[in-house]
Amino acid sequence: MQLSGLNLVAGKWVGGGQKVFSNNNPTTGEKLSPDFREASDQEVELAALQAAAAFDIYERTTPEQRSIFLRRIAEEINNLGDELIQRAKAETALPEARLIGERARTMGQLTMFADLIQEGSWIEATIDRAIPDRKPLPKADLRRMSVPLGPVVVFSASNFPLAFSVAGGDTASALAAGCPVIVKAHRGHPGTSELVARAVQKAVDACGMPAGLFSMLQGTGQMGLQLVRHPVIKAVGFTGSLRGGRALFDAASARPEPIPVYAEMGSINPVFILPGALQTKASAIAETLMQSVTLGVGQFCTNPGLVFGLRGNAFSDFANKANELAHKFSGTMLTQDICKRYRESVEKAASVHGVQSSGKPSSSAQAADAAAVVLQADAETFLKQQELHEEIFGPATLLVNCGSPAELETIARSLPGQLTATVHGTDEDLAQYKNLIQILQQKAGRLLLNGFPTGVEVCPSMQHGGPYPATTDSRSTSVGTGAIKRFVRPVCFQNFPQSALPPELQNDNPRNIWRIVDGQFTREKC
Amino acid sequence: MQLSGLNLVAGKWVGGGQKVFSNNNPTTGEKLSPDFREASDQEVELAALQAAAAFDIYERTTPEQRSIFLRRIAEEINNLGDELIQRAKAETALPEARLIGERARTMGQLTMFADLIQEGSWIEATIDRAIPDRKPLPKADLRRMSVPLGPVVVFSASNFPLAFSVAGGDTASALAAGCPVIVKAHRGHPGTSELVARAVQKAVDACGMPAGLFSMLQGTGQMGLQLVRHPVIKAVGFTGSLRGGRALFDAASARPEPIPVYAEMGSINPVFILPGALQTKASAIAETLMQSVTLGVGQFCTNPGLVFGLRGNAFSDFANKANELAHKFSGTMLTQDICKRYRESVEKAASVHGVQSSGKPSSSAQAADAAAVVLQADAETFLKQQELHEEIFGPATLLVNCGSPAELETIARSLPGQLTATVHGTDEDLAQYKNLIQILQQKAGRLLLNGFPTGVEVCPSMQHGGPYPATTDSRSTSVGTGAIKRFVRPVCFQNFPQSALPPELQNDNPRNIWRIVDGQFTREKC
Repeated sequence: MQLSGLNLVAGKWVGGGQKVFSNNNPTTGEKLSPDFREASDQEVELAALQAAAAFDIYERTTPEQRSIFLRRIAEEINNLGDELIQRAKAETALPEARLIGERARTMGQLTMFADLIQEGSWIEATIDRAIPDRKPLPKADLRRMSVPLGPVVVFSASNFPLAFSVAGGDTASALAAGCPVIVKAHRGHPGTSELVARAVQKAVDACGMPAGLFSMLQGTGQMGLQLVRHPVIKAVGFTGSLRGGRALFDAASARPEPIPVYAEMGSINPVFILPGALQTKASAIAETLMQSVTLGVGQFCTNPGLVFGLRGNAFSDFANKANELAHKFSGTMLTQDICKRYRESVEKAASVHGVQSSGKPSSSAQAADAAAVVLQADAETFLKQQELHEEIFGPATLLVNCGSPAELETIARSLPGQLTATVHGTDEDLAQYKNLIQILQQKAGRLLLNGFPTGVEVCPSMQHGGPYPATTDSRSTSVGTGAIKRFVRPVCFQNFPQSALPPELQNDNPRNIWRIVDGQFTREKC
Repeated sequence: MQLSGLNLVAGKWVGGGQKVFSNNNPTTGEKLSPDFREASDQEVELAALQAAAAFDIYERTTPEQRSIFLRRIAEEINNLGDELIQRAKAETALPEARLIGERARTMGQLTMFADLIQEGSWIEATIDRAIPDRKPLPKADLRRMSVPLGPVVVFSASNFPLAFSVAGGDTASALAAGCPVIVKAHRGHPGTSELVARAVQKAVDACGMPAGLFSMLQGTGQMGLQLVRHPVIKAVGFTGSLRGGRALFDAASARPEPIPVYAEMGSINPVFILPGALQTKASAIAETLMQSVTLGVGQFCTNPGLVFGLRGNAFSDFANKANELAHKFSGTMLTQDICKRYRESVEKAASVHGVQSSGKPSSSAQAADAAAVVLQADAETFLKQQELHEEIFGPATLLVNCGSPAELETIARSLPGQLTATVHGTDEDLAQYKNLIQILQQKAGRLLLNGFPTGVEVCPSMQHGGPYPATTDSRSTSVGTGAIKRFVRPVCFQNFPQSALPPELQNDNPRNIWRIVDGQFTREKC
């Protein structure tokens, strides 16, 4: 299939804009074709207006119709076959096996949301029946459920060219909720984005959905801001840098009508290795740590970038082992720009007074090749130097030795918000360090014991989100079924006759969903 | 009981600040004693730091402990007896019966949240058990529930001196969720605020809660902003004007760590009277409309300030009847300032070219006396004049006659976000105007048929919130059990041994709560 380099605006491939861009193969440094055309202002405007028009139609579709549509998108992605995998590989340097796995995850997310909306309890249908003879005042009939917010802008992630990109988790959850989607494609994988957009377009057509339901635009951050500021847009999903996410949040908050921004902006994911664990399994922990640090060339949001332990021989042995393993690793990063930033970040951290570094972030000046790096510092240095609290995107981690259990707590309290926080400890450790775990609970969206945070399970109990600056909204998750709740708000229907109520709120419970009726969970009619 | 005029900061009554203020009896215009001392910067700082310290203790309390505490607050409010009612009456001009009812509602809200947290399903405990032999990768044990955000600032409302003030809905829901509260008292009823703060303080002492759990500060909007900007504060609850709420939202969004602001900023609550209803019961609708418009001297957030119908004799008769009823009503508003703004708002609206007004907003120049006013305009005027889309806080309503069903839809689309939207219609009307109802669903948090929006039921299915500018967060409600969800975020526990998990997530389900286990709703052990 020939790539067009165009933008998908409400069912049409267009490229009226003057500006083009291209990307390179990060492994070879070669320019990839074709050139891609940035969406023009008019195309952005049209995508927004068509999304608003589509919303009026799409919000009336049944969960069954939306679920057929989501499954069809998954099928059409699968139909892209090896071409999708090869293009993604050429654009991101991610290995084929990983991309095949990621495609499966992407399809899995779409079908998970299809199942979820068919099951139906996620809308939190709540019914309080009338009590006409209540004294002093009668009680009205009140029924509440979630309804979609309206058109959503999704910003693709660099590090998941499929699972958090054009038809990734944000898009799937927004479409499932009943919201049209406009995707701002990531400039690191525009060809992959075009292919997936074609798959979505086919599903839109096949399911008779309104064309404006889905658009995919290529362009810059400026174009992204134009979308976020558009009055018809009602929410934003984003995965990327703190700087990028904050800019979108600020723009959305400054609108005449502010809208929610769900920006997942990464995290340093602290790991605390408690004394008992360090004594008994330092070497094994060092091995799994470095596997986690280097997984996907360190380009996961949950990459463990900070490790704390009590000063002593055991921690030194642990550090030596981690260092030794780091020396064996190198890999190709997603883009040359990302690799360049990785090198700069490592060099900046290594140059902080009191930080030791045993390796270089790159084995060659070529393309996007990166090496793993272990940095070391003591707690005093870490607490003093704010730049050590920032994420290094790539296969690096900073080991920090602390003087006392109290200092571990001080460190924990000093941390900014995180996606995850991890503790390694024996049963005795856990009993002794309860306070530490409580402090970490205030800091993170996910707490792990004796594991590592990479490998984010897609399931109902996943929480992929955390206090700022991990995200702009700690009340939300971008992974798992909970992600759908970002794109809805409750509406209460008072004194509606049965025929005017949505099926979810009718006495007969025709969708057979779990509801709360007069304060009780039930699937019964009422 | 002698009022002190001081601020309650973490268990101590203090008044180190230099500035004082006082308020007047709105009925008589007389100055009330004592003078109240605005909290000093140091007192604000102390309240914040003590709230943060209290959070570390309070978040570990059990739902049972918190529920005993909430019930005790209700009891202590009741123990204030008639003194509370008389002070509130002197400060707000609200009639005794209303205040006694509002006290019952306030106590009812506290016990409702006490019941809710004992029942426990609101934390949305979700468990996905491990599958160690899953291929290609094992599945970890993941368990998620809601945890409190941290210290919350609550801004009291003028129009509910008890139910949305010091120990009102925002405070009750935040305390129930596990969050310490700092109340910024409303300047319209500082004595009532002091009395209720004493009741809360007694409950804090009696239940052995940390003193920093609750503070009540008297002061200006500037002091409020100082609180909102304090780094330990994690959320804000507010009921008041658009201007005030937006200022808090802007300050909170501009923080280094942005925090959620739940500002309920009022609404004009449009009412659409469809032709069938107009033909058959115009007079009865006019009567209930004017009851709703004048209830509480028009000082409810859900006061119906806009009424639309199709031009013709039936609408003229309806308007005449409404006008006639308006002429019979006058009442005393909450404060002289509020009454002054009411007069100005009515005069401003009445002076718009194309608007007819048949009465004056005041029968006397005395104190806070206001009269009901019915304004009239045609749809063209309404669509053109943006100032007619703004809330008039007080007993006024604007009747707008429209030329066609299509114009009703155009009007509906032009409306900003609302707390409520109401339709009066026969069954035939409802079938014919489905589109209109769908449009209104995009605009409001609560939709009513053949009723009026004043009288907000406190129950699980209530939604008191709506798209901006009705609130700053349409995903939330400030009335009903759903209000508690504003002050929590989810945390996922991965691979935690049973002993380290919160009881809510343990296999045995010791709290016997509804949970989702491996995708299924259940109260069983797992």
